[in-house]
Amino acid sequence: MRIVLLGSGNVATHLGKALFNAGHEIVQVYSRNILNAISLSEKVEAAGIDSMNSIDQSADVYILALKDDALNTVISGLPELNGLVCHTAGSVSVDVLDKFKKRGVFYPFQTFSKEKEVDFEAIPVLVEAGDEGSLKVLKGLASDISKQVSEVSSLQRGQLHVSAVFACNFVNHMYRLADDLLKDSGLSFDLIKPLIIETAQKVMHLSPGQTQTGPASRNDQKVIEKHLNMLKGQEPYESVYRLITDSIRASAKRG
Amino acid sequence: MRIVLLGSGNVATHLGKALFNAGHEIVQVYSRNILNAISLSEKVEAAGIDSMNSIDQSADVYILALKDDALNTVISGLPELNGLVCHTAGSVSVDVLDKFKKRGVFYPFQTFSKEKEVDFEAIPVLVEAGDEGSLKVLKGLASDISKQVSEVSSLQRGQLHVSAVFACNFVNHMYRLADDLLKDSGLSFDLIKPLIIETAQKVMHLSPGQTQTGPASRNDQKVIEKHLNMLKGQEPYESVYRLITDSIRASAKRG
Repeated sequence: MRIVLLGSGNVATHLGKALFNAGHEIVQVYSRNILNAISLSEKVEAAGIDSMNSIDQSADVYILALKDDALNTVISGLPELNGLVCHTAGSVSVDVLDKFKKRGVFYPFQTFSKEKEVDFEAIPVLVEAGDEGSLKVLKGLASDISKQVSEVSSLQRGQLHVSAVFACNFVNHMYRLADDLLKDSGLSFDLIKPLIIETAQKVMHLSPGQTQTGPASRNDQKVIEKHLNMLKGQEPYESVYRLITDSIRASAKRG
Repeated sequence: MRIVLLGSGNVATHLGKALFNAGHEIVQVYSRNILNAISLSEKVEAAGIDSMNSIDQSADVYILALKDDALNTVISGLPELNGLVCHTAGSVSVDVLDKFKKRGVFYPFQTFSKEKEVDFEAIPVLVEAGDEGSLKVLKGLASDISKQVSEVSSLQRGQLHVSAVFACNFVNHMYRLADDLLKDSGLSFDLIKPLIIETAQKVMHLSPGQTQTGPASRNDQKVIEKHLNMLKGQEPYESVYRLITDSIRASAKRG
């Protein structure tokens, strides 16, 4: 496939490299910032451009790997295109691409950092398209780089995104609160790292309902009171401790 | 060392095996339930007993690997002992062992499941003792099975335990909420597993302050509103989403 990549952030970088390594031709990399466009374009043997007027109108696929707020600006600025136009945003409907005949979503469901290489094969890619032909193209592209390809609707993708906020963003914030608490006690975050890895690995084989441990899940009132005394008046720790402890108890009752 | 192990749960099992494999002699395994005592004793070539009167009073070390609520009962039931007596509880002070001349704490800082083998070498062991001689013994034992041995006070251990509630128990509950949300949408928890592992692995090399991503950390009001609309009136999701989002924003401001 001849692909034009719009964007130069984490998703654009990892996705561009994976598609390039799978044998696809990245024709151009567009970014508002020409230096970013050139930097990524060199990695995937493409041309770097910063003007939408220069966009190659004969490409097969246009991938908009942009922040949610830049997405609308770029869509309005694009000319009519015969190729398939897709975005990579978790919480944006496919409908924002209505002005294009062939449209879709190509959503790699992972958190990306620029400095860390990822194994794209292990990343679920969730696709959606406006028509059967486009769906086939996106499924093909996805299968070239990932072993786990699923078709999900815009509604499901939105729900998946909310779930990811809990399982990734909120989880990371729990790590942060633990880190802050340890610092306050003169203890190193290193001490808790084995526990963090083990907690994540457990739910690879068991359901989170089965792996729940701790004072809230066994309703150990003595330990909970001890902890609340230690955290008294210290926000956000006390509020978070109370709410999540109550929520664990409620979940335990639901089973 | 000649060791008597009191308890037959997850901690007793993994700790007993690790000490046995390191070349120590497990003399006896005590449990209120004789079948549990025998089951573990067979794995570490010890005698299984269910009566505190039968306890070998010439052992070097007695390890009380018991639930917090069973701990006091066993302590009261034990005779005076010349050996070193220690417990493995995160949130219990060393002072509960006051009746023994030589006392300490031997706290392996990990979450254990019976069915899952653990690499004890990678588990931090936190020790504390009533006197220098006992401290030396516990540090020696800990070094035989773990590469990461630290001395921490009862106060610090309590704070570490609270941190673990955030980084392990509360994290697991976030997985649970994500699992429930996915089920409601007809989606599989498998989709989110790569994200969970990546989120945990990121904080092995970067601080959680650096790895925070998502709508709250970039203060993306549009996405936050969209999510809150989806979760409206659905508890505990809405309350958790609001509180943790606010807490992430506050952390982002603190830097």
